[in-house]
Amino acid sequence: MDSAVKAIAERAYWSAYPESPSPRVYGEGAAEQGREAFESYLGKPFPTDQPGNGAWIGAERSPYGIELGVTYPPASAGELVSAARAALPAWRDAGPLARALTCVEIVNRINKRSFELAGAVQHTTGQAFVMAFQAGGPHAQDRALEAIAYGYAAMTAAAGHARWEKPAKGDPLVMEKTFTVVPRGVAVVIGCNTFPTWNAYPGLFASLVTGNPVIVKPHPGAILPLAITVQIARTVLAEAGFDPALVQLAAEEGQGLATDLATHPDVRIVDFTGSTEYGDWLEANARQALVHTEKAGVNTIVVDSTDSFKGMLGNLAFSLSLYSGQMCTAPQNILIPEGGIETDEGHKSFDEVVQGIAGGVSRLLGDDARAVELTGAIVSADVLARVEGAPSLGEVVLESRALKHPAFTDAVVRTPVIVKLDAAQEDVYGREHFGPIAFVVATASTGDSLDVLRRTIGRRGALTAAVYSTSEEVLRAAERAAVDAGVNLSCNLTGGVFVNQSAAFSDYHGTGANPAATASLTDPGYVAGRFYLVQSRRPA
Amino acid sequence: MDSAVKAIAERAYWSAYPESPSPRVYGEGAAEQGREAFESYLGKPFPTDQPGNGAWIGAERSPYGIELGVTYPPASAGELVSAARAALPAWRDAGPLARALTCVEIVNRINKRSFELAGAVQHTTGQAFVMAFQAGGPHAQDRALEAIAYGYAAMTAAAGHARWEKPAKGDPLVMEKTFTVVPRGVAVVIGCNTFPTWNAYPGLFASLVTGNPVIVKPHPGAILPLAITVQIARTVLAEAGFDPALVQLAAEEGQGLATDLATHPDVRIVDFTGSTEYGDWLEANARQALVHTEKAGVNTIVVDSTDSFKGMLGNLAFSLSLYSGQMCTAPQNILIPEGGIETDEGHKSFDEVVQGIAGGVSRLLGDDARAVELTGAIVSADVLARVEGAPSLGEVVLESRALKHPAFTDAVVRTPVIVKLDAAQEDVYGREHFGPIAFVVATASTGDSLDVLRRTIGRRGALTAAVYSTSEEVLRAAERAAVDAGVNLSCNLTGGVFVNQSAAFSDYHGTGANPAATASLTDPGYVAGRFYLVQSRRPA
Repeated sequence: MDSAVKAIAERAYWSAYPESPSPRVYGEGAAEQGREAFESYLGKPFPTDQPGNGAWIGAERSPYGIELGVTYPPASAGELVSAARAALPAWRDAGPLARALTCVEIVNRINKRSFELAGAVQHTTGQAFVMAFQAGGPHAQDRALEAIAYGYAAMTAAAGHARWEKPAKGDPLVMEKTFTVVPRGVAVVIGCNTFPTWNAYPGLFASLVTGNPVIVKPHPGAILPLAITVQIARTVLAEAGFDPALVQLAAEEGQGLATDLATHPDVRIVDFTGSTEYGDWLEANARQALVHTEKAGVNTIVVDSTDSFKGMLGNLAFSLSLYSGQMCTAPQNILIPEGGIETDEGHKSFDEVVQGIAGGVSRLLGDDARAVELTGAIVSADVLARVEGAPSLGEVVLESRALKHPAFTDAVVRTPVIVKLDAAQEDVYGREHFGPIAFVVATASTGDSLDVLRRTIGRRGALTAAVYSTSEEVLRAAERAAVDAGVNLSCNLTGGVFVNQSAAFSDYHGTGANPAATASLTDPGYVAGRFYLVQSRRPA
Repeated sequence: MDSAVKAIAERAYWSAYPESPSPRVYGEGAAEQGREAFESYLGKPFPTDQPGNGAWIGAERSPYGIELGVTYPPASAGELVSAARAALPAWRDAGPLARALTCVEIVNRINKRSFELAGAVQHTTGQAFVMAFQAGGPHAQDRALEAIAYGYAAMTAAAGHARWEKPAKGDPLVMEKTFTVVPRGVAVVIGCNTFPTWNAYPGLFASLVTGNPVIVKPHPGAILPLAITVQIARTVLAEAGFDPALVQLAAEEGQGLATDLATHPDVRIVDFTGSTEYGDWLEANARQALVHTEKAGVNTIVVDSTDSFKGMLGNLAFSLSLYSGQMCTAPQNILIPEGGIETDEGHKSFDEVVQGIAGGVSRLLGDDARAVELTGAIVSADVLARVEGAPSLGEVVLESRALKHPAFTDAVVRTPVIVKLDAAQEDVYGREHFGPIAFVVATASTGDSLDVLRRTIGRRGALTAAVYSTSEEVLRAAERAAVDAGVNLSCNLTGGVFVNQSAAFSDYHGTGANPAATASLTDPGYVAGRFYLVQSRRPA
């Protein structure tokens, strides 16, 4: 069984993340040129056209241990907002089509820089290179295009001009009516450390296409990918005759700038990805703005039964190991009936299922040199402390292991720790433990598991949930529980689709219906509040 | 000129409000049956199927002076919310199409009761009967249908099911995906005194069609029109096999129930029409809910020049007189250059324009018996006090006059007062004076008028603005000012279209882009936040 589970997980991995992006798509030499471009930033002031005051800041460090030393001009909230406001009218007046085309061209230019961005994402987030390329490059660009498309569709759902007639005594009343899309105002995007581009692009492009200037405030630990993005956007905007201040970088080393920006009276939209604590604070305090947040959650897997025990274990092993669980979509709580489950390999006791999951992970990550390409490195000292402290939470069924990275000797790499809990320990599994930490939880029954899912996700939110069952009845009950909890559900994933991955234009990311996020990528609610319609009418 | 202006205004009036609704549409005898139905409610407990506790409350009084004496069962926020929550799952699971069809049938039944509702609207709001019929009946029903249509369109913009394929090594990945519309939660609609149905129906039907149970909390002075509406909705819902608690009446005499409901932790949507003070309070305190408010504003007319002086005066006279200016869309501030304007009758000085406007109103309302059919009655003691106190605000150029109503001897009827101010008195004209009070304001120039418009609407909001000009350049500048201020603009209205009227499916009501309202009837932002999308995916 060992090799079968590992083979399934590995095949799945390379299906999700092809070993190397095709030169046919990106051009011969693109990988090398991208690497060189990335390396050219290191140890220098970042080449930006944004005005500065002569000072340079920046404290990014690579989870792989290499020196970055990139610096950026510091910015003040007042100056950024003021420049953004001045840039607004011409961008508003350009109209939806010109804005959408300009946004698409920005994405097109970003796409050509995918290798360069992959290096920047890898060395700020700790993602393995191939994942940094895919998730930080084309997958993030897909979400950008999706936001542009939905924004454009919402702005143009009703006609821009209409001729209106009404019968009346004598001549009919005839009016010409014009409807203008008016942006909400200055927008701020607050990025996260783990997916600087993927999580920032939707808000950036949803706001920009609907006419709002955008101030991009990266996480202090992951500035470079967004600095490159902003610089590309500014170049395209200037070429198209617009004020480059429509997209500005707000770099900082500390944490005060996000608050200054988000509570500035002229900031009208805030998109945030990060901690529940700061997200809740923004929702309560950035009252002058429309606030969209994506926060923490307790992603949950309900194991009831399976017709592919190996497939299930391989799929779970991959989902737990990918980027060391440092994904907002990675599973945390795996709920298993204490009496065990039925499988294609006969009945498996609770402990057999737990051992299967633990064994799947340890075998998948058995070879350090290959494993690091899946786990990447640990993004921050906080996550490292959390994984090191996890054994205090319960009985460890799989220990976290430090891996040696063959290329980066100072890389901090850890495999997942799996801790066994019983259903009563909701104080532990009922909150998020971000990083490579998972819980296997013994429940009285699958019905009990679904109650736990409903309750914990209702309270703390989740971006993903999954169920394994051979019973249509159980699957329907799980779907009902997911609808009640307002969480997206994946059923019986045993192959190359993973609970922690969502495809733009096909899968929603988040729902808005539970505490983990206020909106979904990308549904009507994500774009609609970013603009207004103002009409003018006159007799024909 | 006298008779020409009056003729224009009167022709306009009967074009907007036909003298009597056609029996071909509503059936022979519909008017009489409707009147009898309305009268059958008077002096009795309202016939409702909602549970009560034996007590009956109600203190509505007719602005026409007749006794109403209708009583309703009091309700507690906790019980209403609890019943609403219990009703939610089956309504959610019925899906968008079943909900839309049920909502349309509710509107259809309401339409058949238009005469009965007209009586209820007339005697709670003080609107003249024909206006109560049109604005409280078919026009309100149009806005309901519009909300249903936009809600349905938003829910079904993306597919409900999809088959997804992705090439992979070996067999392609194939998934079946299902997307479920999930309502936000329990909704509360807080109605106003002047347009109980027109202002409540959009929120009621936008929430209901998107799956949310709705608690309807009428203004204590205008319960009956919404009590009838709720009873119709409950009947249709029960006939369709749904829990009638999906629509509940929350009657009260005082003002505590709105606050209890709006801040209840399980209430997730609040739609409010009324004062800026309470609307702002709701926005600040009903933090657990999506709050849509329509509040006060300073509706503004910019007079620059005209090619139909009589048409302009007739149109303005009508807009100022209709329902004694007790419309959220009625003009308040008329900005005129101190040097006067060019017209088809030659140059008119500032005072000539002011006298023309005052004269237009006094001639239009010269005959008491006809005038009351336009002005209706004064809705409340507050409005009466405000019109009586208006002479203290500045130089009165047209006095308010008490009219004798030929049919209702105790009706409180007042014509508009017009007060002259100069541009420096922004402390007076820069805030709303709801009721039959208008200001003619002398400005340095039309450019100055547009600055005043931009500034006052930017600060205090407005639902409407208008401009009169023969110069395309000035019209464009006005359109630009309106876009800056985020207000809907009407240009050169001299015939049967009025600044205070908007047509569903063609005109937006409010924009969301200024302080008078957080959203527009009906744009994507008005419906999008009322529901979420939750997906389930499984291997095909």
